Amino acid sequence: MASDDDTGRTAAPDAGLLSPVRAGTAAEAATSDHAYLAAMLDAEAALARAQARLGIIPPEAAEAIAAAAVPERFDLVDLARRARGSGNPVVPLVADLRALAGAAGEHVHRGATSQDIVDTGAMLVAFRTRRVVVAELDRALEALAGLAARYRDTPMPARTLGRQALPTTFGAKAANWLLGCLEARGRLTAVILPVQLGGPAGTLDAYGARAFDLVAAYAEETGLARPVLPWHTRRTPVAELAGALALTAGALGKIGTDVWLLAQSEVAEVAEAAGPGRGGSSSMPHKRNPALSALVRSAALQVPAQAQVVYAALAAPHERPAGEWHAEWQPLRECLRLTGGAAETAAGLVSGLEVSAELMRADLDDLLDALGGDPGPGAAGALVDRALDAYRRSRA
Amino acid sequence: MASDDDTGRTAAPDAGLLSPVRAGTAAEAATSDHAYLAAMLDAEAALARAQARLGIIPPEAAEAIAAAAVPERFDLVDLARRARGSGNPVVPLVADLRALAGAAGEHVHRGATSQDIVDTGAMLVAFRTRRVVVAELDRALEALAGLAARYRDTPMPARTLGRQALPTTFGAKAANWLLGCLEARGRLTAVILPVQLGGPAGTLDAYGARAFDLVAAYAEETGLARPVLPWHTRRTPVAELAGALALTAGALGKIGTDVWLLAQSEVAEVAEAAGPGRGGSSSMPHKRNPALSALVRSAALQVPAQAQVVYAALAAPHERPAGEWHAEWQPLRECLRLTGGAAETAAGLVSGLEVSAELMRADLDDLLDALGGDPGPGAAGALVDRALDAYRRSRA
Amino acid sequence: MASDDDTGRTAAPDAGLLSPVRAGTAAEAATSDHAYLAAMLDAEAALARAQARLGIIPPEAAEAIAAAAVPERFDLVDLARRARGSGNPVVPLVADLRALAGAAGEHVHRGATSQDIVDTGAMLVAFRTRRVVVAELDRALEALAGLAARYRDTPMPARTLGRQALPTTFGAKAANWLLGCLEARGRLTAVILPVQLGGPAGTLDAYGARAFDLVAAYAEETGLARPVLPWHTRRTPVAELAGALALTAGALGKIGTDVWLLAQSEVAEVAEAAGPGRGGSSSMPHKRNPALSALVRSAALQVPAQAQVVYAALAAPHERPAGEWHAEWQPLRECLRLTGGAAETAAGLVSGLEVSAELMRADLDDLLDALGGDPGPGAAGALVDRALDAYRRSRA
Amino acid sequence: MASDDDTGRTAAPDAGLLSPVRAGTAAEAATSDHAYLAAMLDAEAALARAQARLGIIPPEAAEAIAAAAVPERFDLVDLARRARGSGNPVVPLVADLRALAGAAGEHVHRGATSQDIVDTGAMLVAFRTRRVVVAELDRALEALAGLAARYRDTPMPARTLGRQALPTTFGAKAANWLLGCLEARGRLTAVILPVQLGGPAGTLDAYGARAFDLVAAYAEETGLARPVLPWHTRRTPVAELAGALALTAGALGKIGTDVWLLAQSEVAEVAEAAGPGRGGSSSMPHKRNPALSALVRSAALQVPAQAQVVYAALAAPHERPAGEWHAEWQPLRECLRLTGGAAETAAGLVSGLEVSAELMRADLDDLLDALGGDPGPGAAGALVDRALDAYRRSRA
Repeated sequence: MASDDDTGRTAAPDAGLLSPVRAGTAAEAATSDHAYLAAMLDAEAALARAQARLGIIPPEAAEAIAAAAVPERFDLVDLARRARGSGNPVVPLVADLRALAGAAGEHVHRGATSQDIVDTGAMLVAFRTRRVVVAELDRALEALAGLAARYRDTPMPARTLGRQALPTTFGAKAANWLLGCLEARGRLTAVILPVQLGGPAGTLDAYGARAFDLVAAYAEETGLARPVLPWHTRRTPVAELAGALALTAGALGKIGTDVWLLAQSEVAEVAEAAGPGRGGSSSMPHKRNPALSALVRSAALQVPAQAQVVYAALAAPHERPAGEWHAEWQPLRECLRLTGGAAETAAGLVSGLEVSAELMRADLDDLLDALGGDPGPGAAGALVDRALDAYRRSRA
Repeated sequence: MASDDDTGRTAAPDAGLLSPVRAGTAAEAATSDHAYLAAMLDAEAALARAQARLGIIPPEAAEAIAAAAVPERFDLVDLARRARGSGNPVVPLVADLRALAGAAGEHVHRGATSQDIVDTGAMLVAFRTRRVVVAELDRALEALAGLAARYRDTPMPARTLGRQALPTTFGAKAANWLLGCLEARGRLTAVILPVQLGGPAGTLDAYGARAFDLVAAYAEETGLARPVLPWHTRRTPVAELAGALALTAGALGKIGTDVWLLAQSEVAEVAEAAGPGRGGSSSMPHKRNPALSALVRSAALQVPAQAQVVYAALAAPHERPAGEWHAEWQPLRECLRLTGGAAETAAGLVSGLEVSAELMRADLDDLLDALGGDPGPGAAGALVDRALDAYRRSRA
Repeated sequence: MASDDDTGRTAAPDAGLLSPVRAGTAAEAATSDHAYLAAMLDAEAALARAQARLGIIPPEAAEAIAAAAVPERFDLVDLARRARGSGNPVVPLVADLRALAGAAGEHVHRGATSQDIVDTGAMLVAFRTRRVVVAELDRALEALAGLAARYRDTPMPARTLGRQALPTTFGAKAANWLLGCLEARGRLTAVILPVQLGGPAGTLDAYGARAFDLVAAYAEETGLARPVLPWHTRRTPVAELAGALALTAGALGKIGTDVWLLAQSEVAEVAEAAGPGRGGSSSMPHKRNPALSALVRSAALQVPAQAQVVYAALAAPHERPAGEWHAEWQPLRECLRLTGGAAETAAGLVSGLEVSAELMRADLDDLLDALGGDPGPGAAGALVDRALDAYRRSRA
Repeated sequence: MASDDDTGRTAAPDAGLLSPVRAGTAAEAATSDHAYLAAMLDAEAALARAQARLGIIPPEAAEAIAAAAVPERFDLVDLARRARGSGNPVVPLVADLRALAGAAGEHVHRGATSQDIVDTGAMLVAFRTRRVVVAELDRALEALAGLAARYRDTPMPARTLGRQALPTTFGAKAANWLLGCLEARGRLTAVILPVQLGGPAGTLDAYGARAFDLVAAYAEETGLARPVLPWHTRRTPVAELAGALALTAGALGKIGTDVWLLAQSEVAEVAEAAGPGRGGSSSMPHKRNPALSALVRSAALQVPAQAQVVYAALAAPHERPAGEWHAEWQPLRECLRLTGGAAETAAGLVSGLEVSAELMRADLDDLLDALGGDPGPGAAGALVDRALDAYRRSRA
């Protein structure tokens, strides 16, 4: 065996077989190649509309371009391969869009450079995917608030370096998860996602006196923010986004780690929800695995490395780098879809979490024996109240 | 805009739109979800055949299993989603394979655990993709050897910190590229890719006295190496592979970096080959971009971060981790396909490289003016000879 | 040779021999082991004072503790080695501090856990180092604003993928650098640096009803922020700090990259300031190297990887991890001192930058020849004005 | 507080306060700034001796240079700061060495470039530190082999995703650790550590026909390997070393992770050795923490990120990069000293590990209850034998 039967050059879907944390999630769909293609076409259409508003191109041309800018009319696989010639997919995309737009073709991509469309497309994908991530975070937050409130006074051992230390409550643990996700949510929603428009040299050279009006109109048409300057090689928005996603993946990963450890056979204080096809093993029917925790953790272990590529690409040469920019695309996508998948997975995990106050109590009793008395959970209850208060204020 | 029209949960192909360095390359096909599915099915079929050889299961069962283990009979998208329940795709894959194998179904996956199949599948993909990578490396090596020989004595300035330093030759530069790729090739081909078989606890518990015979037969059936022990959580093979790929991507990236810099407008000592759809700009027809160099560099900037995830996963808990293992899959795939894409791209880049001895000479003359004389290229020619000698010996 | 003469277990200073970007800088001093020791002692003293304010311990005890908490009275090397027993330096530090505090010794570290002191100490170091980094950023910003204004209308070629593209101005390039550093400064100063106090289980168990009053008093005594909850394993502050530093290092690295490329022999549009011991080569007296750019870039290439460790540590087990926390310390310090060193280096680089409008013009003329006309620098001047306006508003 | 009292520019020792895993270890001493200085001076002395052997410089000059090349005669702190001018410490080091060598000064560093000395110095440090790492690995291996043999048939539960799965033996677990460390040792010792000599342009220009004889003599004088070509920007040796250290740190980290988990209060199947100052807590006298495991893990969590910087630096510009090379130094040192510290720590951990066959049995009984019978540990004993056999063969 070990033959190369499968190295034929046929395109095959990446369905997430190697990335179950995001397989079939909303974030996966929102970050597919199709979604990126749609977003780049939306960017071209928005640019045309913005130019029509300013009288730079005829309104009919903008309409014709928007009508042509439909992803189904493009061949993704072919675009991806033709992208190799220029290093980015916008050169072939513009060629095809011009052909599809007929007489309006000459008005396509006017004054823009490839990066304007790739970057604006990426920001549109980020904008749309962030909405998905935040919705799942909100679902997780609500469930976490419920856990914190419900188990506010349920005692259990705190564990440091894996050893039982002193009493705490499960509510305090959930409050810590809650606040971590809340902080990540705040950070993520604060990231500014701007439109990109600069033209070949980043000088908006093709637009004369109306350059900044055009940027403003373009921003309005896309729903994205208006940048102070083009950011072709000032990658603050992309780095901020990657960092916020790494923070979010980490906050979710903290939950996954704790649940995995609490669900160990010898601890068993919590369990992931059972159900058909959940937590099964291919070989051990008696087992109920913390499979969702493993998936959330798999994302938390990957996202920081993807963000690292994005941060490292900040030191990019001149007005467009030969590599650093191209290296950003896939890692940023991974940050978005892994974090989105982790959020959706964690929301399910937390919502269905089974908590055994009895086993917590039993473990605590072992600890109290070792301590020779019960020092009590300190301010654990008040900590829960403070976290819930912060959560409620954030909702108001 | 910024609507969520595209967040519907339909699967869309990942055609490499965000990763042109590997779009349409042989390495992309060899690492597709389809290729992984095929490799996991090959692993199940090989296991069955090995068990039939040892009389553990009937020969007819092995034949029936092999006949059923055809990727086209499986629904990739569905498998990927069902993988979320157990955390890996083998649980649903085995269920479907059993159903397809009819009466032989009871003999499917006998004594194995999910990880045996995922890991063996990954090693098969690695084995097959490595062949592709090495073939492209060989194409690059041959072209590099040609450059080194042809330009053995073509003088040019050596540059340190971007400043002209002293004379060298373009042959010496190509010899350095050649040796870097040769060393990477040696490292990559030396990585041992073993079969995985341990069963649920890594103890080969289901196979009794024939356990090691079965491992040997399984290795033979797959064409993979025979491991000393199961390596469920001793991830040496995976880490070694990721490291070798990072070394390879770096050796290729060195070429991309140098070509990018030599192709600058003000240097122009080399140029990437021209041609339809090559090096074009969406906005500047006068430009000829080092697009292939940018693509190669985009891979070299990503692979180390992917390898980092794999190295970090070495410290994996117990007999199967809750996350570290799952976190490996996609980064290892990225290492394979980015490096393979970079090799194919670099082979094309080097094969078509246009070299201007005249402009090298002109730049050198500027340097010699600054130096006030010509110290000559030192042992540059002998360095070329040594590298070519190493290359030729490696071919023998 | 290759003897092991130098492996004797004597402590030797890390003077930055391998890290010239920060050797001798203010950030290096602010992040030394001595600075960390001083900060941890400050944390103990502040805790004692806060407890005295609330009547938890006698005022004289707080005074005695503060008097004892002087770094010079401690043996750094010995503390570091004894830290191996418990995994952190606070266990031996508290033992020594108790001994030094005499009768007040019993009031040292009351109700606190090691992590309270390590984390508060790290936040104090971060607070103090941030001040240094920001001061150097401000020096760089002022110089960048000067460059942007002075060269607002100085034309030069914009370069994409290393190729001359269209005209821009050097002012526009400087404006882009300016805005990048300004955004990074904003991000860095926005990071909340909280005090840590939670006690062994994170429940503030030792402080009864006055727990939150004590946290508030402790925050006041240290000058740090008051957290909502203890953050022993909710590492938002640390991750946010690392991310902000990676953004800052990247913004500085962008300058270093551009200066390196503009200072190439064949471009020579800028040069780093000359001077004794600046930019020299050990072998080539004719060379003037962009040495400061290389140093700034060396930091930008390291910080993202250090930040990655910090982000990855977010998914930390339970109430104190066995490794993730310990893994954070050195990378966070590297983020601080590398970025601080880069800021100081970049401030010097930018302040002394020599700009040749003539050579920019000459290169531009080559481009205009290729273009067959002068399209002009577009809105470059207006871009400068916008960046300067943003800068001035930030100063107001 | 939060004052900047501590930002004065005084140099302070880095005694490992933030890095207890290597504080006071042999690897720390072998990688100190002093050790690097000594190694660079050894490189200069070896170069002089090699040149004397070939008659390039007078023998007396080589003797005088060697006599002057004593680290104690140099001011580390001053060298580190003067390194900022040229970007590397060799420029000031050569100046000082020339002054110290008196009449022989003119023969110092003849024909070499800074990088020849920095790189050769780093390889000498690596050579010496590797010896330390390997010695500690050998100590760990011997202890691991002892554990594997002693507990060959001691049953315990295998755990997957944290859940008890099926029986295994503690010997099988130790055998897995053993083989992982053995593989890492093999990889680490196989890394070729070559001398660097190329001169300013990498062309050995100053040495005429005797260039390769000189490289050979230089290699002999240092005890390092002879390279095919200078490797100024073909960083295979450095990347291979970083990768091998990441593999080693991971193999050790695997042990740390397992011990941490087995030492949990609820599992308690193993414990780290007790003793004064071992595993203590600053606040909880009843606790015995797996402190050594935490330290080993802290290294395993950092080294991959440091190695990543080294791998990413492979794509280095031209004949000497402006940053990539400088960025390698500190991360490579961290790889060496963290891994060395982890090896020494792990050797102690494994040597003193307390194993409770009783508690393993008790946990196993819980599992067997769930299983409804005892399937036995499969081939666990044979796995131990195979690992021990591999170990013994490696010793032969």
